[in-house]
Amino acid sequence: MRTNAQQQVRQLLGEAGIQINGPNSWDIQVRNESFYSRIIAEGSLGLGESYMEGWWDAETVNEFIFRILRSGIDRKVNPALKLLPLYLKSALLNMQSRARSKKVIREHYDLGNDLYEAFLDPYLQYTCAYFQGTEDLNVAQEQKMELICRKLQLKSTDHLLDIGCGFGGLAKYAAQRYGCQVTGVTLSGAHAHYARKFCAGLPVTILQQDYRDLSGQFSKIVSVGMFEHVGYKNHVRFFEIVDNCLEKDGLFLLHTLGNDRTTKYADPWTEKYIFPHCLAPSVHQLSSAFEGRFIMEDWHNFGAYYAPTVKAWWHNFNRNWNALRDKYGPKFYRMWKYYLLSCEGACRARQIQLWQIVFSRKGVLGGYTSIRKLKEQVAVSEPIPISNLPSPTSPATYLG
Amino acid sequence: MRTNAQQQVRQLLGEAGIQINGPNSWDIQVRNESFYSRIIAEGSLGLGESYMEGWWDAETVNEFIFRILRSGIDRKVNPALKLLPLYLKSALLNMQSRARSKKVIREHYDLGNDLYEAFLDPYLQYTCAYFQGTEDLNVAQEQKMELICRKLQLKSTDHLLDIGCGFGGLAKYAAQRYGCQVTGVTLSGAHAHYARKFCAGLPVTILQQDYRDLSGQFSKIVSVGMFEHVGYKNHVRFFEIVDNCLEKDGLFLLHTLGNDRTTKYADPWTEKYIFPHCLAPSVHQLSSAFEGRFIMEDWHNFGAYYAPTVKAWWHNFNRNWNALRDKYGPKFYRMWKYYLLSCEGACRARQIQLWQIVFSRKGVLGGYTSIRKLKEQVAVSEPIPISNLPSPTSPATYLG
Repeated sequence: MRTNAQQQVRQLLGEAGIQINGPNSWDIQVRNESFYSRIIAEGSLGLGESYMEGWWDAETVNEFIFRILRSGIDRKVNPALKLLPLYLKSALLNMQSRARSKKVIREHYDLGNDLYEAFLDPYLQYTCAYFQGTEDLNVAQEQKMELICRKLQLKSTDHLLDIGCGFGGLAKYAAQRYGCQVTGVTLSGAHAHYARKFCAGLPVTILQQDYRDLSGQFSKIVSVGMFEHVGYKNHVRFFEIVDNCLEKDGLFLLHTLGNDRTTKYADPWTEKYIFPHCLAPSVHQLSSAFEGRFIMEDWHNFGAYYAPTVKAWWHNFNRNWNALRDKYGPKFYRMWKYYLLSCEGACRARQIQLWQIVFSRKGVLGGYTSIRKLKEQVAVSEPIPISNLPSPTSPATYLG
Repeated sequence: MRTNAQQQVRQLLGEAGIQINGPNSWDIQVRNESFYSRIIAEGSLGLGESYMEGWWDAETVNEFIFRILRSGIDRKVNPALKLLPLYLKSALLNMQSRARSKKVIREHYDLGNDLYEAFLDPYLQYTCAYFQGTEDLNVAQEQKMELICRKLQLKSTDHLLDIGCGFGGLAKYAAQRYGCQVTGVTLSGAHAHYARKFCAGLPVTILQQDYRDLSGQFSKIVSVGMFEHVGYKNHVRFFEIVDNCLEKDGLFLLHTLGNDRTTKYADPWTEKYIFPHCLAPSVHQLSSAFEGRFIMEDWHNFGAYYAPTVKAWWHNFNRNWNALRDKYGPKFYRMWKYYLLSCEGACRARQIQLWQIVFSRKGVLGGYTSIRKLKEQVAVSEPIPISNLPSPTSPATYLG
């Protein structure tokens, strides 16, 4: 039985140019013979968990994952199961992890700011950067924010709503560089606290509330890396809220992970350890949600830039690990390493898309012109002196 | 009854700022009192047909249509009917026109080249031009072709397949400017004949056949303004053919009209008189067809540029009418005028989208970078001397 599993795994990996205990950096070093039957039985969940438990390693985990995904052998693992169709398997695994998700959230998701400060850029952008003409994460994150502001055609007279504002980095950038009012919304108390301090003195208001309770009118709306958490059952509701809050001639920019195939189930390992209840939508799922409500003005895919983004996160995390070690411990290190490196491989293999979609209500008269290339030089606008910026409005003036 | 209809129409048009027999260029001059009950009963089909019959006029038909569509009153006409839901109505009308469609095609669709030469640009592009930084149709059509070639990253070593090549304008441009092999496919004998002469001496092969019979491998594939004719039942088949014909690392650019809402029925007047069996797909319909087969690398919407495109066509048509008059007659003039001007209004009102979508098979490694802005100057590349271009390959070498 075990030999059979080993044979299957060896053959599959061979198709991706990966040898068991081979000499290349992407080859897999197997330290526990139960590995083979485990990944045949458990797929990607077993692969990730057995890595965390030290059953296997690879000098370059990202290259190992890249080769698996680019070769397409991942789609062969499940048929090899001959037990359950993929759909049922995912459903069962996810049900399992959902039952345990509260514990998982407490353990892994409400992590300290120290962790994020250790691996993110100074604006604490926990989303894909725009690596055009640069290899520097900090520059690429500024470029991402600049790209968003320009696509939204931000002006100082705008009031920007940021749904899922995280640590407030984009709110800060937009207020600093474009002089507009920004209202950021987050569910997380830790984020709200951080963002208020981070944006102090700027025309930024941070609200700690569910996006579904939003009201008021905004000339521009943005949501970056939050739609993935909305859940496919709430996609329509999300666009309804944006529709209600966006002024007649406003623009909405959605920045989200994208999936090439419609699914209701995320990767089980990522679901369990990193992003519970997270799902990247497909074009099909998105279109079901926005059709009849918005005109799709532009759809930009820069998923390939997620590879250098997470690669930089990994280098930062690894470099700063000494300061985190006592608090997070060695199992966390291995989990976080697997997460970042497998993501890098998956994004480089183009299995994960990153979309920025610009929507208008009825179509911009005269047409909407989008942007792909920022200037060669880091084409960010200059900060506006604080004295020239308007004061933050109080929430009461724009909340219904 | 008639007074009732008149009252309804007056009120609806009033909401769009249009007066009956009013003084503004967009106001409607009604010459037949049966007009009101006819458009209440027949919707857009009655509006178009009654225009052709001279029952009404407007100094600027395009402004009249623009105001109707931008105000949204068109969506109120059918509920006012209280006879049949829109779905059934469109279905019935379309069935009617399908029964008559052969006659219609003979009368209106297999029109002479003289007509198209009279209103199109020198490359005979019967699709949306790219009016960026120019007001000249001829320049804008060259820019559209340049944009396509650059998005496809055309090189002299490429073999480009053009599905639905029309008069061969893009095939000519691509071969002239990029020095690549081009195979153009068209169903129409008139188009094939024209395109072969038009591209003489260039590495261009024109095939007169159904796209479903295509085989062979091409490094790049393009389809411009043809997908609308494929029919929603054949969307999947279309992408299957492209998938079969595209090399592993190839790119496919689809240029098509787009619809903000999923429908199986086109506007009944346009269906009957201009484009029988033509339907602009929605994002939703397209995604159903390409999902699991292609990675969507970029989705560009420049529907607003269709307004200046058809406006220029109208001016050319009108200026050259004297040479066409005897052959086509006054009823055709009024039909063509209504077609072009109502399109102009609809596109300016942003009711009609124009999409260029770039697809790859598995995702371009390192990412795909698209283009929005061509240089300020007409950024077209220089023609390559004919002596430096390769010879056309014979069809036998790449057809299976």
